Amino acid sequence: MKPYKEMSKEELEGLVGDLENEYQSYVDMHLSLNMARGKPGSEQLDLSRPMLDTVNSTSDLIAEDGTDARNYGCLDGLYEARKLMGDMMDSKPEDVIIYGNSSLNIMYDQISRSYVFGVMGNTPWKDLEKVKWLCPVPGYDRHFGITEFFGIEMINIPMNEDGPDMDAVEKFVGDPAVKGIWCVPKYSNPGGVVYSDEVISRFAHLKPAAKDFRIYWDNAYCIHHLYDEITIPDILEECKKAGHPDMVYKFASTSKITFPGAGLSALATSPANKADILNQMKHQTIGHDKLNQLRHVRFFGDFAHMKEHMKKHAEIIRPKFEAVESILDEQLGGLGVGEWTKPKGGYFISFTGLDGTAKTIVHKMKEAGVVMTGAGATYPYHADPHDSNIRIAPTLPPLDEIKQAAAIFAVVVKLVSAKKLLEAMN
Amino acid sequence: MKPYKEMSKEELEGLVGDLENEYQSYVDMHLSLNMARGKPGSEQLDLSRPMLDTVNSTSDLIAEDGTDARNYGCLDGLYEARKLMGDMMDSKPEDVIIYGNSSLNIMYDQISRSYVFGVMGNTPWKDLEKVKWLCPVPGYDRHFGITEFFGIEMINIPMNEDGPDMDAVEKFVGDPAVKGIWCVPKYSNPGGVVYSDEVISRFAHLKPAAKDFRIYWDNAYCIHHLYDEITIPDILEECKKAGHPDMVYKFASTSKITFPGAGLSALATSPANKADILNQMKHQTIGHDKLNQLRHVRFFGDFAHMKEHMKKHAEIIRPKFEAVESILDEQLGGLGVGEWTKPKGGYFISFTGLDGTAKTIVHKMKEAGVVMTGAGATYPYHADPHDSNIRIAPTLPPLDEIKQAAAIFAVVVKLVSAKKLLEAMN
Repeated sequence: MKPYKEMSKEELEGLVGDLENEYQSYVDMHLSLNMARGKPGSEQLDLSRPMLDTVNSTSDLIAEDGTDARNYGCLDGLYEARKLMGDMMDSKPEDVIIYGNSSLNIMYDQISRSYVFGVMGNTPWKDLEKVKWLCPVPGYDRHFGITEFFGIEMINIPMNEDGPDMDAVEKFVGDPAVKGIWCVPKYSNPGGVVYSDEVISRFAHLKPAAKDFRIYWDNAYCIHHLYDEITIPDILEECKKAGHPDMVYKFASTSKITFPGAGLSALATSPANKADILNQMKHQTIGHDKLNQLRHVRFFGDFAHMKEHMKKHAEIIRPKFEAVESILDEQLGGLGVGEWTKPKGGYFISFTGLDGTAKTIVHKMKEAGVVMTGAGATYPYHADPHDSNIRIAPTLPPLDEIKQAAAIFAVVVKLVSAKKLLEAMN
Repeated sequence: MKPYKEMSKEELEGLVGDLENEYQSYVDMHLSLNMARGKPGSEQLDLSRPMLDTVNSTSDLIAEDGTDARNYGCLDGLYEARKLMGDMMDSKPEDVIIYGNSSLNIMYDQISRSYVFGVMGNTPWKDLEKVKWLCPVPGYDRHFGITEFFGIEMINIPMNEDGPDMDAVEKFVGDPAVKGIWCVPKYSNPGGVVYSDEVISRFAHLKPAAKDFRIYWDNAYCIHHLYDEITIPDILEECKKAGHPDMVYKFASTSKITFPGAGLSALATSPANKADILNQMKHQTIGHDKLNQLRHVRFFGDFAHMKEHMKKHAEIIRPKFEAVESILDEQLGGLGVGEWTKPKGGYFISFTGLDGTAKTIVHKMKEAGVVMTGAGATYPYHADPHDSNIRIAPTLPPLDEIKQAAAIFAVVVKLVSAKKLLEAMN
């Protein structure tokens, strides 16, 4: 079939008629499918079931340093947990803090504390006229949700194939009101972008006007490869070499490694940042769940085994990604109605359609029983300037449901695109 | 022996000489004992070991409402966990939010959100000239630590035998800058005070000038009886009846029921407060650890079994409390050098010595190898106006160590008191 943009009005009208019928046949099926959130599927969760036996009623519950993991204490986490999460994040155990079950919660708390108390003696953000934040787009809606909640002005940064547009980043950090940037450096959400060595080096060499500017480096998918392992330089090490050891906070969790909601989360940063954080955090908690730390440490043994575990995840979800990709290739290829990513890892496929179609596509998907991430969610303030980006999350549903949902998606994209082009003709 | 205050200078001098020798013999033993924190002992922790088997690799991990407890979601916690913690807190499941492992963290977050975003549409505290807080004294150091950290001005409220001095509380809440009060209503920390029905009723009928005044009702020891069960009226219900349904947040955790650091924490409050909290909390997390919620629910089954479990705790720690009490009775009774509580529950004995002796006593205990809670810790800003209150935490060490520590404590109290009285003669 030829590109839609080359079609005549009559051709498009005929197409729309056929597609309406095809769409209606899906609606009549009263489906209930969900491609909205980056949630692991049940089969993936089963991979970590044996972890639940590693801490049982007869286990030795004393940590390596003699700490009783059942009792209070240990603000920055057990050494062995800091070692495991540190290995995963390319950091030394001394530079790691283990938190509760959610890295999102760490990021929120980090911003909250910076806002109220300030970063390393700098003015608390609440006392500033204006605080701004850089947001590579499309990006992660929950990141943007935190900065929006704190009234921080978000600035869109275009995302290139090798990471954020560093010319733009370098320009904006000259503004002392700019205090941070959201980054998902490997398999970005939703684009699947892997930051290049050059981009990472330019990050490390940033000269921000604000002394308390911090890179929020969210290692959400750092070992979540769909194919071969991809490694990138460690931003903390690069910042150190560039003479900016305190410029980055790295975040990670095992939410998509073991159990979302029952995993470990962690932060890795410089010794000075860590001391600053603990000095504030000591008022908030006596320590996080050390039994769950033991559970993870004993299940994996070491980082090598964690990587093996991730290969099993990849075997389960790779076919889901490939199914979506091949359906989109087959159904939409050559039509000029959209582009989609073919990520090498992470949890999402990013679809970019014709301008002004994303909201309608997501709405019609919902009417056909398929819940997708809200259009606009990948932009600060939910404001996609082109109304064109849609995040596809293929991991949760079983393979057959994913195929069905992708097939419906292709029909909806064609239908909405054809109608959009027709509209433009009138 | 007669009261120290009736002794002559010579008698006191002789006494001090003997006590110095006795004290030195303890110092020479190079002990390492700890009566500082309210931590359960190892034998208590063993009581909950079987809980670790209730969620294992072959368990059904689906909650009552069909939620997969392994995956993301469920911001306010599983229904069955809200039911269990609600029963413990005298609240309906609908009024409960389950959090992570620490009720201290809930209180911190609650104050942090009130500070930054405000309570139910009221002005955020950060934007007010002054925020004040009522602190019944002696009280819990970590409570005071939070309000101090946020720069909130703390006002001491005398603690009577039946709860805080309500005349003072009623007077101070007339000030619109007063936004809250710390309460541990049953077995207060450290005094072991149980609030009377009248005190609770007067709390419920408070008419605070500030619309966002909240009672922070910390049910830290609500079922932590050493002897028979003691029940008190439910403050939330009383507030509702008095027409102030939104005036209280209740907090609790299983830290001293199952595992400190690996328990559940919860908040119970009115539907309006709960909605306000969740509306803010949704930016911070997707949900807390639901596998740990299942673990607790399956271990206890219901609240009746939780109460049975608490009797086992009491059997372990009651002898420790009684050992301290009887040693103090024996060694210090009739000397007029201090008073101590004989609590019916909770985790502490509160000792009040002669004015100006607490710091010295704690210091000399440390030199003899016994770590105690810092003198002054039971007052805001660590400022005990009489330098007389010391918190004794008898739960952690084994019984024989507790007896030894109490014996040393008695010697140190006698020595420091005698020297203090001598000083006054010079």
